[in-house]
Amino acid sequence: MNIPSLARRYLPILTWGAEYSRKTLANDLVVALIVTVMLIPQSLAYALLAGLPPQIGLYASMAPLVLYAIFGTSRTLAVGPVAVASLMTAAAAGQVASQGTPEYLGAAIALAVVSGLLLLAMGLMRLGFLANFLSHPVISGFITASGIQIAAGQLGPVLGIHAEGENLVDLLKSMVPNLAHINPYTAVIGGATLAFLFWVRGSLKPLLMRFGLGDRAAGMLAKVGPVMAIVATTGAVWGLGLSEHGVKIVGTVPKGLPKLALPPMDLALWMKILVPALLISVVGYVESISVALTLAAKRRQRVDPDQELIALGMSNIGAAVSGGFPVTGGFARSVVNFEAGAETPAAGAFTAIGIALATMFLTPLLFFLPNATLAATIIVAVLSLVDLGALRRTYAYSRTDCAAMAATILLTLFDGVEAGLLAGVGLSIFLHLYRTSRPHVAVVGQIPGTMNFRNVARHDVVTDPGVLSLRVDASLYFPNARFIEDYINGAVAANPAIRHIILECPAVNTVDYSALESLEAVNLRLKDGGVTLHLSEVKGPVMDGLKETHFLKELTGQIHLTQYDAVSSINPELAIRTLEAQRLNP
Amino acid sequence: MNIPSLARRYLPILTWGAEYSRKTLANDLVVALIVTVMLIPQSLAYALLAGLPPQIGLYASMAPLVLYAIFGTSRTLAVGPVAVASLMTAAAAGQVASQGTPEYLGAAIALAVVSGLLLLAMGLMRLGFLANFLSHPVISGFITASGIQIAAGQLGPVLGIHAEGENLVDLLKSMVPNLAHINPYTAVIGGATLAFLFWVRGSLKPLLMRFGLGDRAAGMLAKVGPVMAIVATTGAVWGLGLSEHGVKIVGTVPKGLPKLALPPMDLALWMKILVPALLISVVGYVESISVALTLAAKRRQRVDPDQELIALGMSNIGAAVSGGFPVTGGFARSVVNFEAGAETPAAGAFTAIGIALATMFLTPLLFFLPNATLAATIIVAVLSLVDLGALRRTYAYSRTDCAAMAATILLTLFDGVEAGLLAGVGLSIFLHLYRTSRPHVAVVGQIPGTMNFRNVARHDVVTDPGVLSLRVDASLYFPNARFIEDYINGAVAANPAIRHIILECPAVNTVDYSALESLEAVNLRLKDGGVTLHLSEVKGPVMDGLKETHFLKELTGQIHLTQYDAVSSINPELAIRTLEAQRLNP
Repeated sequence: MNIPSLARRYLPILTWGAEYSRKTLANDLVVALIVTVMLIPQSLAYALLAGLPPQIGLYASMAPLVLYAIFGTSRTLAVGPVAVASLMTAAAAGQVASQGTPEYLGAAIALAVVSGLLLLAMGLMRLGFLANFLSHPVISGFITASGIQIAAGQLGPVLGIHAEGENLVDLLKSMVPNLAHINPYTAVIGGATLAFLFWVRGSLKPLLMRFGLGDRAAGMLAKVGPVMAIVATTGAVWGLGLSEHGVKIVGTVPKGLPKLALPPMDLALWMKILVPALLISVVGYVESISVALTLAAKRRQRVDPDQELIALGMSNIGAAVSGGFPVTGGFARSVVNFEAGAETPAAGAFTAIGIALATMFLTPLLFFLPNATLAATIIVAVLSLVDLGALRRTYAYSRTDCAAMAATILLTLFDGVEAGLLAGVGLSIFLHLYRTSRPHVAVVGQIPGTMNFRNVARHDVVTDPGVLSLRVDASLYFPNARFIEDYINGAVAANPAIRHIILECPAVNTVDYSALESLEAVNLRLKDGGVTLHLSEVKGPVMDGLKETHFLKELTGQIHLTQYDAVSSINPELAIRTLEAQRLNP
Repeated sequence: MNIPSLARRYLPILTWGAEYSRKTLANDLVVALIVTVMLIPQSLAYALLAGLPPQIGLYASMAPLVLYAIFGTSRTLAVGPVAVASLMTAAAAGQVASQGTPEYLGAAIALAVVSGLLLLAMGLMRLGFLANFLSHPVISGFITASGIQIAAGQLGPVLGIHAEGENLVDLLKSMVPNLAHINPYTAVIGGATLAFLFWVRGSLKPLLMRFGLGDRAAGMLAKVGPVMAIVATTGAVWGLGLSEHGVKIVGTVPKGLPKLALPPMDLALWMKILVPALLISVVGYVESISVALTLAAKRRQRVDPDQELIALGMSNIGAAVSGGFPVTGGFARSVVNFEAGAETPAAGAFTAIGIALATMFLTPLLFFLPNATLAATIIVAVLSLVDLGALRRTYAYSRTDCAAMAATILLTLFDGVEAGLLAGVGLSIFLHLYRTSRPHVAVVGQIPGTMNFRNVARHDVVTDPGVLSLRVDASLYFPNARFIEDYINGAVAANPAIRHIILECPAVNTVDYSALESLEAVNLRLKDGGVTLHLSEVKGPVMDGLKETHFLKELTGQIHLTQYDAVSSINPELAIRTLEAQRLNP
């Protein structure tokens, strides 16, 4: 590939940037304004959820948006802090240092840079397929459990009491003794905000539409609910002097842009957080790519999964360099961006400018913002992630998938995010390997009077006692090679009448070297036992591979084009009977 | 299952024991005598190879044989110390303690008990499929590299110089400075034994047959070559007093049976050797089951892979309790047992008695046995394991399999057995996951005038620009679910003319919950983009599963019995054209 096409591949901005017009610019600027308003409270809230000072949330919402605009292939994805990644950040950084210490902040920044480097490496080495091994039931169970845990954790700030713990049990345990010390002012603010936000979510949009607003405008306005709650409660705390009655407030948020700096280059720290960083990367990527694909499909746009890894990697490295914590493409913010009409990633870059301006000039306005309000916005946001009904739906379709999901939920709630996710992935891969190693093998027989062969267990078929026809419904390769050997050994030992074995191979897409050697061994062993081995319906590419092999030279039987050819070459009478039957019932 | 059938399943001795006759007894006794003579030098040699006192080899050749006779399902497999497991034992125990210390012996015994427990657990939990992930190229590469390394290591004792190292490089490095101190007497004994044994292997059997011996008798006699070498060289050392000229001899081998004792119950030690013990178990099991299947096939007997795990597990626990080191079913000894005419595992039990008698009465005869002779027998035995030609054969068939093999060989030789094996297994599983996650997807079109659809890249077919027909040659499940999503997203974005997508599913054996959700997402996204999704040729069991799902209710298109039905329902003109063509060319 030459330089310009390489650049176009790794820098999607060159493609959409070339077509950028003044009209698109005007549009993207309006979108950026809307998204900025929505993102400011979200960024503060997720920073607190991650156990970090609020401004870190703002820092993580600038550079990543700009970098994604340069490297990302989705036109409308918005990256920044999200709930689940913030929870995972808190769990991982909490293992290294205590909240509030510089070491804790350093660990959060290191998580961003290590996640970013991992994503970048996966993108450049085209290892995105690794994310596939996070199966849907596992990711869905994990997000549900994370949502429950985040919501439970935010009950502390909403009620004005201390809450801390790496899992649901520890969280609840830490809250119970403090229930007597609930701060009534805080609880009123928190409770009212919760009630207001639930009302906004459920009833504001229909109400606005009844007042004549269009569907989209009403939807957008309803999304501004958290901003209204923030303005109202901040005003109340300031006006009524509630912070002197024990209502915790955000306080001084340092003004000005973050200083760009290299993240902590502490290899021992990096190794310590490697696994959590990998999990944050993969969970973030899976979430992000699925949002990106969904939005792209609405406008028939293309999203490149490998380039998305690179873009998310660069976004996280950008977050780290500007003092932020791990980011990813978020569902809520991307939908707002899309629905507001974003046409290019430039809208994201303009949003970054909006947040920068807010960070420079508006932070004094946030001084009296109560933590309880932010906690309430988090609770309302994450409860939409909780989907316990998925357990029932998964159970109805597949018991094993449901088991993997339940294990993920239980371990996340009772042990922690890392244990839950690792157990889910481990169990999925284990079950995958288990199933792979025991492929479906059907004994087939002829449907009388036809040239068709079907499973003897499902159809009325005729078989010849001296011939065992097996259809293997899988590719032959090392995970199942030995299974086939064992299966044939068992079948032949159990039935002394067998003189021929025919392997019907229409579903065999590949035969690897292990399976080839197994077939060789099967052929020789059958020969020793006086049994001939045949193959039928071998696919073209498989046949190409087998052509020059020792196995084909040693094969005691033949390779037949069809299963019918195979059976009738062994038993010509069968062919005569079949043709007669077809003459009678054409 | 009731008690008697459970007992019959887990104690195969109850089955063959019930039919045991006096004639079989006489036969098995003769076999036992032959095998005993062959096993004694082998056991001593492999103990020295494992860095253990010679009698440990004898100890490991008694209890395991008896326990395998009770629990094993192969009639002819002979278990005991083997070359590769001995090398692995030396590597693992050497990481815990120095050769010659009681801790080293304790580690070797602990390896046997932990291997045994792991095998037993795998057998009871039916986890034998885990051994499948040791692909043929990896195991073959590992055995070749082990053979090279063992042979190189035995050059030390053959020449009478010091040789030590965990890999080939260290071994050769440790020998070079000592080449000046070669003991000439030792080198003559070692060299002569090597030459004699190679001659025996290559020329003795044909010679004996020319003197009128039958094929089998000649073969058996040729196998006694090592015993002849031992008698001759022991006699020479004794007669010529060579041990006073620096020829290292076996010396005093403690007389009498081993004391039964619990193995060291040191959990810290067990954890330290867990991974090597697992590798020894799996490599031993793979070797053993393949020998067992090969021999069983010759007499159409059944080998039960799960019960074999239990039998090998009990054999290793037996080895540990009687002071021995890890054992497995060996190729050479099993073939001798089989060819001598063993009919039941009782032959093995009688062999154990033979070795016990030898241990009680014959060990003084071994005093002057030179180590060089044993080293020479090892070299000749292991060189038959080395098969570098397999690299070429594997390369001709599959580049990736060859890469896994080469990586295993190189890492084993340049780093050590554990690293080589783990790298090979890791690489195989990685490549497996990679391939699994990118299934073959063919765009198909109609072969003109027929109802058949084939890959557009391989056949002359016609397609409709508004219809994209895709044949997925794999089951749909979480490793490839996202790939299909990406594939369809890319295809639709690249071609705005597409109005229908048909997934032809004859090779889809299962659809798991992840793939179901992916199909749901694909359906909704295509709907948003104005494209209809259809399925065709869905298999019965897959259709059963889909029936009650949300996906089927939401599906924008239809499920068609055949790909032809699907295409002609979208484009009825095509059906008319096809039928006309068939009328013209029936």
